[in-house]
Amino acid sequence: MVMKNKSKVKVIPLGGLGEIGKNMTAIEYDNEIIVIDCGLGFPDMEMYGVDLVIPDITYLLNNRDKVKGVMLTHGHEDHIGALPYVLKQLNVPVYGTRLTLGLVESKLEEHEMLSNCTLLEVKTGEEVKTENFRIEFIRSCHSIADACALAIHTPEGVIVHTGDFKVDYMPIDGDVIDLHQFAKLGSRGVLLLMADSTNVERPGYTVSERIIGDNLTGIFSKAKGRVIVATFASNTNRIQQIINSSLFYGRKVAFSGRSMEKISSMAMELGYMKLSEDQLISVDDINKYPSDKITIITTGSQGEPMAALSRIAYSNHRKITIEKGDVVIISASPIPGNEKLISKLIDELFRKGAEVIYNALEEVHVSGHACQEELKLMHTLIKPKFFMPVHGEYRHLKQHELLAENLGMDSKNIFVLENGQVLELNRNSAARSAKVTCGTVMIDGLGIGDVGNIVLRDRKHLSQDGVVTIVVTIDKASFSILSGPDIITRGFVYMKESGDLINEARGVVKAELDKCMESKIKDWFTIKSNIKYSLGGFLYNKTRRRPIILPIIMET
Amino acid sequence: MVMKNKSKVKVIPLGGLGEIGKNMTAIEYDNEIIVIDCGLGFPDMEMYGVDLVIPDITYLLNNRDKVKGVMLTHGHEDHIGALPYVLKQLNVPVYGTRLTLGLVESKLEEHEMLSNCTLLEVKTGEEVKTENFRIEFIRSCHSIADACALAIHTPEGVIVHTGDFKVDYMPIDGDVIDLHQFAKLGSRGVLLLMADSTNVERPGYTVSERIIGDNLTGIFSKAKGRVIVATFASNTNRIQQIINSSLFYGRKVAFSGRSMEKISSMAMELGYMKLSEDQLISVDDINKYPSDKITIITTGSQGEPMAALSRIAYSNHRKITIEKGDVVIISASPIPGNEKLISKLIDELFRKGAEVIYNALEEVHVSGHACQEELKLMHTLIKPKFFMPVHGEYRHLKQHELLAENLGMDSKNIFVLENGQVLELNRNSAARSAKVTCGTVMIDGLGIGDVGNIVLRDRKHLSQDGVVTIVVTIDKASFSILSGPDIITRGFVYMKESGDLINEARGVVKAELDKCMESKIKDWFTIKSNIKYSLGGFLYNKTRRRPIILPIIMET
Repeated sequence: MVMKNKSKVKVIPLGGLGEIGKNMTAIEYDNEIIVIDCGLGFPDMEMYGVDLVIPDITYLLNNRDKVKGVMLTHGHEDHIGALPYVLKQLNVPVYGTRLTLGLVESKLEEHEMLSNCTLLEVKTGEEVKTENFRIEFIRSCHSIADACALAIHTPEGVIVHTGDFKVDYMPIDGDVIDLHQFAKLGSRGVLLLMADSTNVERPGYTVSERIIGDNLTGIFSKAKGRVIVATFASNTNRIQQIINSSLFYGRKVAFSGRSMEKISSMAMELGYMKLSEDQLISVDDINKYPSDKITIITTGSQGEPMAALSRIAYSNHRKITIEKGDVVIISASPIPGNEKLISKLIDELFRKGAEVIYNALEEVHVSGHACQEELKLMHTLIKPKFFMPVHGEYRHLKQHELLAENLGMDSKNIFVLENGQVLELNRNSAARSAKVTCGTVMIDGLGIGDVGNIVLRDRKHLSQDGVVTIVVTIDKASFSILSGPDIITRGFVYMKESGDLINEARGVVKAELDKCMESKIKDWFTIKSNIKYSLGGFLYNKTRRRPIILPIIMET
Repeated sequence: MVMKNKSKVKVIPLGGLGEIGKNMTAIEYDNEIIVIDCGLGFPDMEMYGVDLVIPDITYLLNNRDKVKGVMLTHGHEDHIGALPYVLKQLNVPVYGTRLTLGLVESKLEEHEMLSNCTLLEVKTGEEVKTENFRIEFIRSCHSIADACALAIHTPEGVIVHTGDFKVDYMPIDGDVIDLHQFAKLGSRGVLLLMADSTNVERPGYTVSERIIGDNLTGIFSKAKGRVIVATFASNTNRIQQIINSSLFYGRKVAFSGRSMEKISSMAMELGYMKLSEDQLISVDDINKYPSDKITIITTGSQGEPMAALSRIAYSNHRKITIEKGDVVIISASPIPGNEKLISKLIDELFRKGAEVIYNALEEVHVSGHACQEELKLMHTLIKPKFFMPVHGEYRHLKQHELLAENLGMDSKNIFVLENGQVLELNRNSAARSAKVTCGTVMIDGLGIGDVGNIVLRDRKHLSQDGVVTIVVTIDKASFSILSGPDIITRGFVYMKESGDLINEARGVVKAELDKCMESKIKDWFTIKSNIKYSLGGFLYNKTRRRPIILPIIMET
């Protein structure tokens, strides 16, 4: 029986299933664990005030001696963003390609922990070896350069993890996704495929990045004023195409927004982006050139209120103001939840006189994820024995299951799992086994995990109806009111205009206190409960609102 | 000069421009005003705790004797939803078609004000006359039955308001949109066209409602369990098609959700929906029939947490639980802002074992608004002298302007306005004139307009970082602390686990108080400011959060 246990490979999803974000999977065999990706997620609507979320890594901490390293598929936040928090607790080597590590480096530098971390560069085609695993980095294609798929050779068979991918036969940065290697692995036999499910709902093929470049050039050819393009700072291929269009029409290029400036300068340094020195200008100098000789590449494509494009639109940018004739291109699509912010941003840009071009009008953005036909290609090349859809909301995983079934796969060989659910495999079989601890750790300011459900429930409650504080000072000896009750509210009603309501409320509290005193109730807890109850009822009747009520009794 | 003023027609948009929602336009001539529609809007993300918004009708109240009535184009909330609030302040007759008034009636009944209101039914093809206006109701087509366009005959010319429309050559409810009447008006000469801009970004034509019916029947033909369809309760044509598909496959139909039950029973009574008595069953009886003989038509297509479908999905519905084999159809598209709620709902339904079909997978919903080709048809038939795009975000209005220009219209005859901006016309000219009061009145519980910017700002602040209350009792005579400082927080940190932080915070406040006392600062305002400042700084350093700080000083 010990032998049997030893001979199983465990696939342990710690994040990324049933959600878009915080991707992280552990692969365990015997005394070793390797981790694939270490991403952050964005807070739900209900996570008031939370900045970001990361996976709960209790399982890894409980097995800390086993963990041999983190293998990164690419440099997007949902794959690398949790590293600063995770490495603080579990300092293991991090493996990835050049650009990916470049992005990790700048992140660790910000957290002042770079010098304590071990980053090990891997080239595509190379392998990382541990006692039990051989991890092959395979050239892939995504909306960021240097993206990889992984083939994890285990004693029980090969696991292929696609990472985030699409198939672009005409990539901007030269080499095509390594289909030959996938074919080779497939013909030799793959035990398990874990594949990107993001776009499984979309039929057909993802458009080539190159088409977007052609469309952008078309827009540049007609632009009579400045061209301002907002896109993801990490999409170096897109930015290269914007640079190329600018060059063609003799436009200088300025970068705006902290992450855009930072990542583009790093990408140029590492050779992932080419821009001659005389074409690059600072935003300080944009007014030295005619409008039709200027391109500004900026952050803020998601309508983020503090990002450069929003500041430009709402006239809060110190150096850039919208001028009539400006053409603004939103070269991105909304991350779910950001639709309204982006919509307001576009409206504001129109109001300021810009011409705004976005995906609903022209094809100026393309997804980085495989559509149905590309997924079918991957499944067909890999021919896995078992399949586990990853990287998607639950419905995406279910649709991906259906796609695999339609390709002839037996449904009992497909595993739609949730985070924490372990899949155990050996060369002949696969089965769900016990769950491990997993979950969402919320980060709010400097606090990691100190905001829990009670705090969130209160914040939600406060956001709906505000807070009403009642203070009264009582003389302990005589059990009589010395001062108060005073009422202070925030987020409930506008106090200056609601004087009557507040006065009446004070009366309600006073009456309740008198009643308690008459009945000789001297237990603060009961008195506070009674005040909450009567005042809550009174306020609800008057306003149909239920603010948080905080009765405070001071004894002297 | 008096004559000149008298002879102008004023078009006064009070809502619906630069936004989707709260549609309301006043048309004024001489001593008369008529109002087109009276809709509500949904609160912005930033309007924490606000239930709904309505237009500010100050202008109408200031001219109350002039207002002759409200003309309704159709019965959607964004066109009739503000009536209960507006009629309370301005009780004028309300004109509309039968189904529209049916919906208004049930709304006024809920507000217990039906008996005081005057609802006057108009048939399409008929007119309402006032001293200066002749208002023609023209049969249109939308995602609700009995929708109208209006031709307002004024002494200076005809104004055509399309209302919300699309062109469906194969409508479910018989008669086609009255293109002949639009053509007739166009050939006689139209002064101003006001047209729906919602779908101006979409090329081509809106799919016919009938195609959706065919698709639904296709899904019914394969369903082996119950079919549960979520759609808008007011879309009687869609519901009729769901009933027809059910009938064809011998399924009984049950309605679930308050508005679905209410509106469907009214629609059947008024003859807008046909369902034989033996096909209709109560949700109480669904378990008396085999699963493949049951259809449930339900509210909740927007993922609203309290609506029937969410309660079904999250197992909070008293009578309906998801069973394996259930087919759930979301026959609606997300209203912007609801994307994440709907996405979570779909995931949950999949988790519970249902097969879920939604627009990303199959065409089970179609918009009620005209796409570009339909808009071109309308512009071409009407041939207006002047054009004012309505019903849309600002970018929609701008795109609609572009569409009209592409059809050959002179840009100086097109007026992209904002709410409150008045357009003055006579038979030869049109121009913007002074602005009138307009805006958004927020409704929160029983409060109409009592939640203003300060309250909202506080709610937002509270939702991000919570509140910290500090109370201290001071002896007025000796100017010494009698009790406290005590600190109570909500939504800031989990107090039980942050005892040290709170203790340190108390120390910071105590030190600040001592300092004030030493410096003989006896002015409460200064003392409170100092406490806020030191405690705020301390907490930000420790947590990077900025809770609302409420220092309360009690004197005895």
